[in-house]
Amino acid sequence: MKLTILGCNGAIPAYGRFPTSQVLEINSKLYLIDCGEGAQILMQQFGVKIMKIEAVFISHMHGDHYFGLIGLLNTMSLLGRERLLEIFAPAGLEKIIRSQIDFALSYELHFVAHINNISTILINSEKLEVNNFPVQHSIPTHGFKFTLKYKKRVVNPDLVKQFEIPKYFLNSLADGKDYEPLHGEKILNEWVTSAGKADKTYAYCADTAYSELIIPYINSADLLYHESTYIDEDIDKATTRLHSTASQAATIALLAKVKRLIIGHYSSKYKDPLVLHQQAIKIFDATDYAEAGKSWDI
Amino acid sequence: MKLTILGCNGAIPAYGRFPTSQVLEINSKLYLIDCGEGAQILMQQFGVKIMKIEAVFISHMHGDHYFGLIGLLNTMSLLGRERLLEIFAPAGLEKIIRSQIDFALSYELHFVAHINNISTILINSEKLEVNNFPVQHSIPTHGFKFTLKYKKRVVNPDLVKQFEIPKYFLNSLADGKDYEPLHGEKILNEWVTSAGKADKTYAYCADTAYSELIIPYINSADLLYHESTYIDEDIDKATTRLHSTASQAATIALLAKVKRLIIGHYSSKYKDPLVLHQQAIKIFDATDYAEAGKSWDI
Repeated sequence: MKLTILGCNGAIPAYGRFPTSQVLEINSKLYLIDCGEGAQILMQQFGVKIMKIEAVFISHMHGDHYFGLIGLLNTMSLLGRERLLEIFAPAGLEKIIRSQIDFALSYELHFVAHINNISTILINSEKLEVNNFPVQHSIPTHGFKFTLKYKKRVVNPDLVKQFEIPKYFLNSLADGKDYEPLHGEKILNEWVTSAGKADKTYAYCADTAYSELIIPYINSADLLYHESTYIDEDIDKATTRLHSTASQAATIALLAKVKRLIIGHYSSKYKDPLVLHQQAIKIFDATDYAEAGKSWDI
Repeated sequence: MKLTILGCNGAIPAYGRFPTSQVLEINSKLYLIDCGEGAQILMQQFGVKIMKIEAVFISHMHGDHYFGLIGLLNTMSLLGRERLLEIFAPAGLEKIIRSQIDFALSYELHFVAHINNISTILINSEKLEVNNFPVQHSIPTHGFKFTLKYKKRVVNPDLVKQFEIPKYFLNSLADGKDYEPLHGEKILNEWVTSAGKADKTYAYCADTAYSELIIPYINSADLLYHESTYIDEDIDKATTRLHSTASQAATIALLAKVKRLIIGHYSSKYKDPLVLHQQAIKIFDATDYAEAGKSWDI
């Protein structure tokens, strides 16, 4: 998986920073996470192919997380997209989007509404599982967890040769199956394979106040994005507006034992996200800060 | 008046060019003309103060001309705007915008709907007149004409002294009034004043096919913006999609005897607007091309 940050600012664009949007690349498919104004323009700027977007995930109905969606959908249609696009979003978004589509869209939209306060499985394919989970904000808001499954076992070629297992059966071995020759003893899978790589997870916490309730959902994630709208000195603002400070984001990362943290969704008050970063790394060393165009391999 | 181009591209953003938006400054007040996605971000980039926006003019309901409006209105509210904002737009826009305002806006919106195929006066104050006028596009579309009135006559101080006209009457002289002293002969205005500067006009032609029907509305404008989506070789596309070529825009400027032409709304096909510019100046020498952040004094 590869995460690329597009917009990383809070509600009001500032210092050239756009509102929230991110794109996650998984096996050459793109998954768009939130879609603030200008997302399609940033995608173009950073060479993200908008026609490869497989699905869109909108966390909540504050405009800085979805005002860029209609423009993106429009452009996809002008470029002739044909396959269906799935949009996982709060229930209210479908009406707003459809009311702006007075032209014939070249492809179908399929909206799947979040259920307030509930975590559900949004996508469950052979290689990918995506869950939403509730976070604590001023309106119903969900975060998202993307799990890339590495279920395949690693086949040992020397042992395969030694046990005279035919080549056509290698994929079945990777899937964990035993080999039964026509004559002779059954060859157990574990004799010739070893465990594959562990699952990889990316968790996106959208806009949220400090809440340890989200920890079970993001526990041990390889990469966590947690908003950090305010510096620690502005904790009162964070509390009132149900946002987090830099230290709060870092504390959640620490408690959830994630491998790496990205902070973002900066208030327009701050010119330089480094101030927030400096506060976060004091609590959680493996903290990076979001910047337009920056990527992380997971 | 000072015009600043923000977005200057056609429907699909390309080569860092945003969809259409422009801002016209008149006596420290700002008038926003169309509002494509990212307009507020470009305003910030070019130091245009969004809180000084007096009114918004939307030409038609193609998304590349209004998708940036909701984000701008949202930001104004977050920044605490209090005075009413007037939006002159097609009838359908109000519902779309209001459906996305589920928060309490800090100020009132007042929508004024265009009347299809009709030219009307939108604003008529002492110093400014704004008209809309129909252009020829695939859906009902209006252009806008801004006229800065210079009705004041220029008072000659030497003659005022010579005729012993008191100082308190100078403003009335500028307004064209004659002076009647208590004793003696009436002093005619024309004896002590001369004609003021001529009116200044900016005409914006939105998206339009080549149409000489618009000439009466834009005649003799000091500055004309006329779309030029295509190069001359793509005239078939221009005709089918009700857009104009570079030469068509220049021909309209020539026939309307405007002083200066700006072309814009480039198709995403073209990397460099200079190709369009080169074709236009062959027909109308006083042609400039739109670029983000470029300004014209009128």
